[in-house]
Amino acid sequence: MTAPFLGPDFLLDTPSSRRLYHEVAALLPIVDFHNHLDPAAIADNRTWNSIGEIWLEGDHYKWRAMRWNGVEESLVTGPASYREKFNAFAETIPHCLGNPLYHWTHLELRRYFGWEGVFGPETAGEVWEVANAQLAQPSHNARGLLARMDVSYVGTTDDPCDDLKFHQQAQNDPDLGFVIAPSFRPDKAFKPSTKGFASYCRTLADVSGKKIERFDDLVDALLTRLDFFVSLGCKASDHGLDDLPPFSKRSSSELDIILRSGQNGWPMSPQDETDFKAALLIELGQAYAERGIVMQLHIGAKRNQSTRLFERLGPDTGGDCISDGQIGTALNALLDQIDQRKGLPRTILYCLNPSLNELLVTIAGNFQNGSEPGKIQSGPAWWFNDQLDGMERHLVQVAQMGLLSRFVGMLTDSRSFLSFPRHEYYRRLVCRMVGQWIENGSVPNVPALTDGMIKRICYENARNWFVED
Amino acid sequence: MTAPFLGPDFLLDTPSSRRLYHEVAALLPIVDFHNHLDPAAIADNRTWNSIGEIWLEGDHYKWRAMRWNGVEESLVTGPASYREKFNAFAETIPHCLGNPLYHWTHLELRRYFGWEGVFGPETAGEVWEVANAQLAQPSHNARGLLARMDVSYVGTTDDPCDDLKFHQQAQNDPDLGFVIAPSFRPDKAFKPSTKGFASYCRTLADVSGKKIERFDDLVDALLTRLDFFVSLGCKASDHGLDDLPPFSKRSSSELDIILRSGQNGWPMSPQDETDFKAALLIELGQAYAERGIVMQLHIGAKRNQSTRLFERLGPDTGGDCISDGQIGTALNALLDQIDQRKGLPRTILYCLNPSLNELLVTIAGNFQNGSEPGKIQSGPAWWFNDQLDGMERHLVQVAQMGLLSRFVGMLTDSRSFLSFPRHEYYRRLVCRMVGQWIENGSVPNVPALTDGMIKRICYENARNWFVED
Amino acid sequence: MTAPFLGPDFLLDTPSSRRLYHEVAALLPIVDFHNHLDPAAIADNRTWNSIGEIWLEGDHYKWRAMRWNGVEESLVTGPASYREKFNAFAETIPHCLGNPLYHWTHLELRRYFGWEGVFGPETAGEVWEVANAQLAQPSHNARGLLARMDVSYVGTTDDPCDDLKFHQQAQNDPDLGFVIAPSFRPDKAFKPSTKGFASYCRTLADVSGKKIERFDDLVDALLTRLDFFVSLGCKASDHGLDDLPPFSKRSSSELDIILRSGQNGWPMSPQDETDFKAALLIELGQAYAERGIVMQLHIGAKRNQSTRLFERLGPDTGGDCISDGQIGTALNALLDQIDQRKGLPRTILYCLNPSLNELLVTIAGNFQNGSEPGKIQSGPAWWFNDQLDGMERHLVQVAQMGLLSRFVGMLTDSRSFLSFPRHEYYRRLVCRMVGQWIENGSVPNVPALTDGMIKRICYENARNWFVED
Repeated sequence: MTAPFLGPDFLLDTPSSRRLYHEVAALLPIVDFHNHLDPAAIADNRTWNSIGEIWLEGDHYKWRAMRWNGVEESLVTGPASYREKFNAFAETIPHCLGNPLYHWTHLELRRYFGWEGVFGPETAGEVWEVANAQLAQPSHNARGLLARMDVSYVGTTDDPCDDLKFHQQAQNDPDLGFVIAPSFRPDKAFKPSTKGFASYCRTLADVSGKKIERFDDLVDALLTRLDFFVSLGCKASDHGLDDLPPFSKRSSSELDIILRSGQNGWPMSPQDETDFKAALLIELGQAYAERGIVMQLHIGAKRNQSTRLFERLGPDTGGDCISDGQIGTALNALLDQIDQRKGLPRTILYCLNPSLNELLVTIAGNFQNGSEPGKIQSGPAWWFNDQLDGMERHLVQVAQMGLLSRFVGMLTDSRSFLSFPRHEYYRRLVCRMVGQWIENGSVPNVPALTDGMIKRICYENARNWFVED
Repeated sequence: MTAPFLGPDFLLDTPSSRRLYHEVAALLPIVDFHNHLDPAAIADNRTWNSIGEIWLEGDHYKWRAMRWNGVEESLVTGPASYREKFNAFAETIPHCLGNPLYHWTHLELRRYFGWEGVFGPETAGEVWEVANAQLAQPSHNARGLLARMDVSYVGTTDDPCDDLKFHQQAQNDPDLGFVIAPSFRPDKAFKPSTKGFASYCRTLADVSGKKIERFDDLVDALLTRLDFFVSLGCKASDHGLDDLPPFSKRSSSELDIILRSGQNGWPMSPQDETDFKAALLIELGQAYAERGIVMQLHIGAKRNQSTRLFERLGPDTGGDCISDGQIGTALNALLDQIDQRKGLPRTILYCLNPSLNELLVTIAGNFQNGSEPGKIQSGPAWWFNDQLDGMERHLVQVAQMGLLSRFVGMLTDSRSFLSFPRHEYYRRLVCRMVGQWIENGSVPNVPALTDGMIKRICYENARNWFVED
Repeated sequence: MTAPFLGPDFLLDTPSSRRLYHEVAALLPIVDFHNHLDPAAIADNRTWNSIGEIWLEGDHYKWRAMRWNGVEESLVTGPASYREKFNAFAETIPHCLGNPLYHWTHLELRRYFGWEGVFGPETAGEVWEVANAQLAQPSHNARGLLARMDVSYVGTTDDPCDDLKFHQQAQNDPDLGFVIAPSFRPDKAFKPSTKGFASYCRTLADVSGKKIERFDDLVDALLTRLDFFVSLGCKASDHGLDDLPPFSKRSSSELDIILRSGQNGWPMSPQDETDFKAALLIELGQAYAERGIVMQLHIGAKRNQSTRLFERLGPDTGGDCISDGQIGTALNALLDQIDQRKGLPRTILYCLNPSLNELLVTIAGNFQNGSEPGKIQSGPAWWFNDQLDGMERHLVQVAQMGLLSRFVGMLTDSRSFLSFPRHEYYRRLVCRMVGQWIENGSVPNVPALTDGMIKRICYENARNWFVED
């Protein structure tokens, strides 16, 4: 019998999967430990004027789909009104069959707005009315949207120079209803060859109150900021490493010279920058371990590959793709060198190239040291991989080559306050997989076993790291 | 219930998939926009003496399978008769369970010859008789075979120096019944380090009427030929890039020197050739854009890896394999540089290494510019990937990371006039996949949505690019 | 209906798969042509004191899982008693759902000890008693365990300097009941840059009675030992190549210098070692061809990546992972150069990186020369890939790009006398796959076809190479 589109048992194709989802997974709060939500929107409890605005103002997933569908840029990121952009997106969505956007969009309409139709040009007007009416209500301001999804933890992504005033403001609000914490993402300190490096160093020196003249000064300044972040509940750092070529250990004086070159706009070799990055990460990694901070490494993106797009719109606008660069040698060496000094922090490895999933899981295995379960994680399917095929592939590979039961679980990684049904999507998929294992005799039909795993990988493992610890 | 072998509902495991295939996909003509059919065979309406000849005279898929099965070379490409070779192939086919050859062979026997048995040594004699009798009929000459499969467009692969006289002859025949067009494949102009380069330049100079002394002359000569191809309906170019290492921009005078070195058999560095290739492709890419020509890039093959085989039989005889070389940096740079100048042509990217599928889809996404749907394509599963697992993997990945609805669809890439059931194979697979999505509630059960997509990716998208535009 | 956990029809989800397994595959003896069993344990018919000892004394799969689960090293490889370690493993196993360890462990308890419960902390005491009581019986000594699984051939892995006395002892025992043969694994001769190389050369000179002063002497010494191995039934060699970068041909005198550098601890470049390895393998490969010895190449591991673990425990203790290094260029060149001289031996290629599966299958295809079926093999899923997903992926890719029917089949690659249910695991998976093909109309429902293939890839192909030939 044909299942209804996105019905209550969507993805749940066995009795066991339905039980696991409805009786276990669906009841759990959400710990969204890595996203790009705007803390100001939470602090100020932002509202949106229209479904067009909340969907399209910053979502490069939708922008890429629209361009792929032949929508001209004025209707994607250009001067057109949000109503016009919304209509262009409505024209695009019927061409997204098979893409997670199709599911995300419809799940969002159902879960946030109670609208259960098929979205497209014919229904765009109706959706516009239904959604906008609700977005005008307090139920649909920033906090209302999070509360509706039972979000208990929000981990944003923040520059070390950020004053975190919106985090403070939100944390000081007794009515907030969930935990918000910053994550420490010092990417700009890792790019001495780029134009912005010098001014970034000046800003960092300012906010940290430390002169930055030598490599060690840079580390000091960052750690000063890290401690400030920690004082506001920070539990995690994050690094966008993009490529990860082999590196060499350099002397302090060499690192000082690279720093100074960066500050003065002097030329440096790619290897200089690579070695500088590695040295800095090894220092920070130890500091994370000492402070109980999770280290997240995002690896394997190639960014800003379309000059045309980058010059018009800047970074993070849809010109990024997967890298096929090798990462194994450097990633092992990086983890090993941190490990040999003060020991590794809790670590989550993400790689954008899914053909390196198995590599990542087995590298994680190299550095599990028995001090706690799942200390080194092969993180959830990231970005382009955040879809049914990509998530399942990742879950199966973690299960087969590692311990799925100790997996830290899913996150949105999103800028959008409407993206939280992705947790439901992930949980349904997890329950489908484990339900099939039960049905086909691959695991014992013992709820104490299977339900415990579902709870851990949908909620408890992340809660233990980010909320309770 | 056990399904009959290759029965009418082969691969169609749900009611929705059966409806999609039998009522939609099966009714569509075939646009085979990239193949290696011999235009002379079409022009002259070739006939074949036996099933042995038509199957085994040029098919390196079968040759590789036979060698893998322990068949000695005399019975593969050697002096044995086609009857002997056919018998050796009949001995091999029972060992091909799970290989697309098993399905292709049986689908060919069914669709072209109405023979529905199980092919193998026991039935070889019967097949020999049945097939040969029909091959002697006008129904089974070159055009008859194409007509039988409802082929509406044939895009061959041709050297720029080709006089295209067979294309002209076929096009001038009012009874042809389908469109035949050449594709422009200037691979020989891209290999200045090889022995044949000098004589190729001389031939090209001859047929184009242009002296080739400088790099720009080479471009001019090729564009002269391209315009001649366009005058005969050419809609596509094709490039076999094999590996794709990072390249650098070279000055005109450097490119002139590389050209001259090639013409004189002087040594050059691999980087010289790499940079020469990139420069030439960037020039041609712009020319394709100006002329509305599709640019096909075939990447990631390693050719002629068995010296023994190559010395005995030459190229394209079964000594080629997948490459694990990196392509991301160079492919992005290549597309970006064409894009920055006159804009990209319609582009189809093929890569022989299926673990780079996701890379390719996301690179395509970088350069969609909204001027038309699916302007940059991650092309269909190619060569070794042209099988159920490889096609499904590609389709899922295009769907999840791009817009499947805008996919240009399948092709045979074949030298064989009997290979057109591969379109049926692909269409059944597509209908199985989309049918499952309907059945399990992943897409709405709305025929206007799903049937439209099936039509587009089985016919209309290719027709729009190659036939109608 | 929910299938019982690991029931009689485990993995067999169609009538055809059940028939294929129970009536064909399950009846076949086991040819385990590559493992790391201790020949002394076979010669002396070793017994074990406890299930803790036999499971945990040398199994780095279990060690990695325990560390991943947060078990401290004292309970993994440290001074704790086997009872304590067993308990720690019992705490770990419920977290292994989805990992092959979960199935292996339970299959071992069922097949060797007749215990059909769910293993975990609650049942640990019972398992301890039940298993230990049986381990004390002659039925469960080393040979008893092999006999219980119908093992007909055991191919161990041995250093050329090994005197093989335990092989001789076992072979001289008329009651042995199966064939045991050594495999020739000269890895230590391939690492001139390492500390142990000089002393290894001295030992090899000693046992071979050959002075080793030049490269050719080293080859001679190894071949002397190879011939000794052959005299004791050796049918296979094995090489752990780890990475496989491009190599160059070096002159004899250069190879002599590299050898001498290794013997004297003088520095050499990585390229020197790479070229030395290639030259040595090309020599040995020809010798294997002349002697009818199978050449096994294990490629793509990165070993001892955790310095902390390596310094504490040495190699093969759980600090190894998959490599993402490129191998295609060098592997093709290696095979081609052996092929051009005296022809290739029977060859089995293993790669730890599953995203190179397709590469490997197509490289194997390059060098099939028709002298026998499946002469060059893309070997079974290895190490981290030896699990349901990894095996199925490999089987499908061999089927689609090669000839599955000619596949040499599965092996344990294990140090454990309890690991032989992995053959059952593989056979069930094979039967599930082929059974589905029958049920869905992908292959004819002709037992002569399908059962023949099952027999070949579960037994006969390996028997032909290792036992009968």
